[in-house]
Amino acid sequence: MARPRIRLLIGDSIALGPGKSRLLEAIGDTGSIAAAARTMGMSYGRAWQLVQTMNGDFRSPLVERVAGGRGGGGAALTALGREALERYRAMEAQADAAVADALEEFTFLLKVPAQPIE
Amino acid sequence: MARPRIRLLIGDSIALGPGKSRLLEAIGDTGSIAAAARTMGMSYGRAWQLVQTMNGDFRSPLVERVAGGRGGGGAALTALGREALERYRAMEAQADAAVADALEEFTFLLKVPAQPIE
Repeated sequence: MARPRIRLLIGDSIALGPGKSRLLEAIGDTGSIAAAARTMGMSYGRAWQLVQTMNGDFRSPLVERVAGGRGGGGAALTALGREALERYRAMEAQADAAVADALEEFTFLLKVPAQPIE
Repeated sequence: MARPRIRLLIGDSIALGPGKSRLLEAIGDTGSIAAAARTMGMSYGRAWQLVQTMNGDFRSPLVERVAGGRGGGGAALTALGREALERYRAMEAQADAAVADALEEFTFLLKVPAQPIE
């Protein structure tokens, strides 16, 4: 089934959207920007760049380096990073619920109305 | 102020999102794919391609050629084109309303919380 996605824009740039939120989640899950990038099929350079942008767009960084571990350190979400991700997921759920009925009706306008959820 | 945007996905491709909906609106306003492309700063080829994709994704075309006029004919929204655009705008409004409070709170996490509406 088709879904609405939320992109929070600052001017024309996306402060937080589906890609950045998935990246934050993957960093939280893996403890590493490199591992998070791999799970998303994204280059390390691109993931690093997105993290820098997010860290700069928010009042304080969302992702921080952590010392130690086999690889010589990794990355973790800060408290603000966890809060931003939680709030984003909550907004997604709110928007999903708000348009669910209208979206189901809309899909009947499409040639292929039903799609598996990704 | 930042805003949520809705992208209606079919699998990984966007059946209707901010760009395509603006293009439909501009075609309806200008009566021409070329003029609509110009108002969006988009090439004619790109606009034409987006129209072909939309026409193929929906049960019947959203945009049709119309004969006559100085330029040798133009384009217009079909009844389904107008319906799809109206339903999309309605869903945007529903999603906006649903996340308005959460979005306002979210912007306080950003370094630059307030932005003019585009």
